[in-house]
Amino acid sequence: MIKDRFEKKIKLLQKEIVGAFLNDDPDLILLEDEWERPGGGGGFSNILSNGKYIEKGGVNISMVHGELPEEMKERLHAKSATFYASGISLVIHPLNPFVPTVHFNIRYFELYESDQMVDSWFGGGMDMTPYYIFEEDPIHFHQVLKSVCDQFNGEFYPTFKPKCDEYFYNAHRDEHRGVGGIFYDYLKGRPEFHLAFTSAVGDAFLKAYMPIFQKRKDNTYDEHHKEWQEIRRGRYVEFNLIHDRGTLFGLKTNGRTESILMSLPPTVRWVYNHHPAAGSAEAQLLKALKPRDWASENINL
Amino acid sequence: MIKDRFEKKIKLLQKEIVGAFLNDDPDLILLEDEWERPGGGGGFSNILSNGKYIEKGGVNISMVHGELPEEMKERLHAKSATFYASGISLVIHPLNPFVPTVHFNIRYFELYESDQMVDSWFGGGMDMTPYYIFEEDPIHFHQVLKSVCDQFNGEFYPTFKPKCDEYFYNAHRDEHRGVGGIFYDYLKGRPEFHLAFTSAVGDAFLKAYMPIFQKRKDNTYDEHHKEWQEIRRGRYVEFNLIHDRGTLFGLKTNGRTESILMSLPPTVRWVYNHHPAAGSAEAQLLKALKPRDWASENINL
Repeated sequence: MIKDRFEKKIKLLQKEIVGAFLNDDPDLILLEDEWERPGGGGGFSNILSNGKYIEKGGVNISMVHGELPEEMKERLHAKSATFYASGISLVIHPLNPFVPTVHFNIRYFELYESDQMVDSWFGGGMDMTPYYIFEEDPIHFHQVLKSVCDQFNGEFYPTFKPKCDEYFYNAHRDEHRGVGGIFYDYLKGRPEFHLAFTSAVGDAFLKAYMPIFQKRKDNTYDEHHKEWQEIRRGRYVEFNLIHDRGTLFGLKTNGRTESILMSLPPTVRWVYNHHPAAGSAEAQLLKALKPRDWASENINL
Repeated sequence: MIKDRFEKKIKLLQKEIVGAFLNDDPDLILLEDEWERPGGGGGFSNILSNGKYIEKGGVNISMVHGELPEEMKERLHAKSATFYASGISLVIHPLNPFVPTVHFNIRYFELYESDQMVDSWFGGGMDMTPYYIFEEDPIHFHQVLKSVCDQFNGEFYPTFKPKCDEYFYNAHRDEHRGVGGIFYDYLKGRPEFHLAFTSAVGDAFLKAYMPIFQKRKDNTYDEHHKEWQEIRRGRYVEFNLIHDRGTLFGLKTNGRTESILMSLPPTVRWVYNHHPAAGSAEAQLLKALKPRDWASENINL
């Protein structure tokens, strides 16, 4: 069954990813938190904190099922009575302001009417939020994502890349959250093919992010850089709490608040009307947040 | 005209309140920021920061008018074409974790059809968000508010106090934001009477808050207290960005983002699944956030 194979995949991914970060960081604390959903199913949260390199992060999997909540029925225009949903969701907030924050998620959904599956689909994506811009980083990140997409369908990257730019957008500031990545949802039909694609997206995470993490994690930085990171983390909070459909939907359907809000950064700062000095490294970042065809850019890496 | 007299009142209140905080705090920086609204009107923001006692705050007035935005028409079920709105809005985030954060706002609204006023109302309120509980503080705060309400209508406090508890509520955590206060809106008819009442609420702010501020501002505290304050400030952010109708409405109707988000605290922290130790001063606070008839409690002050 597709859902069993997908569950196996996300469990494996959680182990691989958490393992990769733990191996790399002697101080990193792992908290394993198992929880049950009153309506059916539950999850395993792996919370990372107080590392030498990772200040706070979460690599969570969940497998839930049961009666379809009223809000979900409306959202999906579904008459179905029951559902199944599983996925892995990850956010890493590094300590060092030169290492980008990263978000990754893949998910699978099934809808049932009287025990008969009537619909199913895959969704997923990953995107990166730097605090300082090194152009080779988003170029590498996007090239890995384009390459995995292209192995399955030449239309995927050109479709899912702009979807990501469009989604991770702070409309109230006319500003994109980061340098994007890919985002897709409601990938229906051809379950074998889409399971393989979504699994490949999962495998691409460490390839896309780890080299950037490794390259920047020991950069020297001072209070000024940290303050800028915390101000930009404020934008991350604004996006997740004001605009992110997943977060708001989870909170409004009695999701597990602590698992949903594990995405929020550890320390954050709001400074009234803050604007970086013209020409500064901070101002450079703001310019780089405009959607851009990173994967096609060439730099001697 | 009511609106001219109300504008005069809020300008005076801004001066009085900002003056009171400046007099008290030699390090406090005042930033005066005037802004114009493209559709008509504008405001004067008074941003306070880096004080010995106030870490960040804002005392803002605005007087705006023009075409009624589409979202406002829907919200008010109004056919009217033009509106006028003015008010003063204040949030103070003290540095010392033993001093509560406070929020205060009064506002006046007029609706027009072909230059004829067809509706008008007053709104307002204030509420307090402590990080540590000294029961005499909410008792004093609520007694001042009850006393000003009672001078106008014996029904006001018993109506506006529960409205405040109901409004400043983080549903996703089943937790109230603070110890409440009063909250009212759409006070229609009898403009002279309601102008007098709303002005009296404005005058009550310093009486309700200043004695608490003075009593706690020099308390000694350490990193542990500060961390707790920052975690609780996270709840303040969650309320303002997820639930506060004013904030969301402002952001979605192209309000001035920086003025709207001046309410956000300077430094904030999110810790996964944080629970204070049983019996600790921090746990005592959480108990005190349950709605309670503070004004009727008696303590030897």
